[in-house]
Amino acid sequence: MSGKKGVRMIKLVALVKRKTGMSPQAFRDYWLATHAPLAAAIPGMRGYRINIAGHPGAQNPAPYDGSAEIWFDDRGAMEAGLSSQEGTIAGDDTANFVDDITFLVTEEHVILPLGTVA
Amino acid sequence: MSGKKGVRMIKLVALVKRKTGMSPQAFRDYWLATHAPLAAAIPGMRGYRINIAGHPGAQNPAPYDGSAEIWFDDRGAMEAGLSSQEGTIAGDDTANFVDDITFLVTEEHVILPLGTVA
Repeated sequence: MSGKKGVRMIKLVALVKRKTGMSPQAFRDYWLATHAPLAAAIPGMRGYRINIAGHPGAQNPAPYDGSAEIWFDDRGAMEAGLSSQEGTIAGDDTANFVDDITFLVTEEHVILPLGTVA
Repeated sequence: MSGKKGVRMIKLVALVKRKTGMSPQAFRDYWLATHAPLAAAIPGMRGYRINIAGHPGAQNPAPYDGSAEIWFDDRGAMEAGLSSQEGTIAGDDTANFVDDITFLVTEEHVILPLGTVA
């Protein structure tokens, strides 16, 4: 399931902008401590990663404050997961820390596996 | 280097919009066959993944046509890699298939490792 070649499963990429007035630290804490466990309960999820953007003093403020990556076996599993009770709860929870969320449905290609020494 | 907990390395997320007039298929082919090997030659890279968005007939066209994820040991290694000769070549090559590219510098948190059965 994490081979080097070819297309594997379906990968949902969510681009997230934090709620106006929320500090980067509060956004990070909420996502990791409160939202992530709700999202991780979505049935059919095969992997879930969060990428939190930006550092204090970053020269180029990012247009998004982070992205999430969620794997499902296929589009049917994704739609079933997102429309499940757990998916609805997690979706509703985004209003507590996110102003805008944009989804890309993607196919992932692993060019260099993690741990490669280039 | 791919443990489940805590912050690991630095992760550059690139959000990519394909060149105007380029078909999704040509964009995908160019990225995978031509650009990816150039980018994968950047020194210090610890991992490289490409996520290609959209499917013909997708109901919600994505604002980006894909994203890339690139890991480095730290910010210094990232800056050295991107400013190396290989980094410059790969950077220049983006003009051949990309109209717009936006970078997020992130910390990654693995909530559910790939292969989890939720």
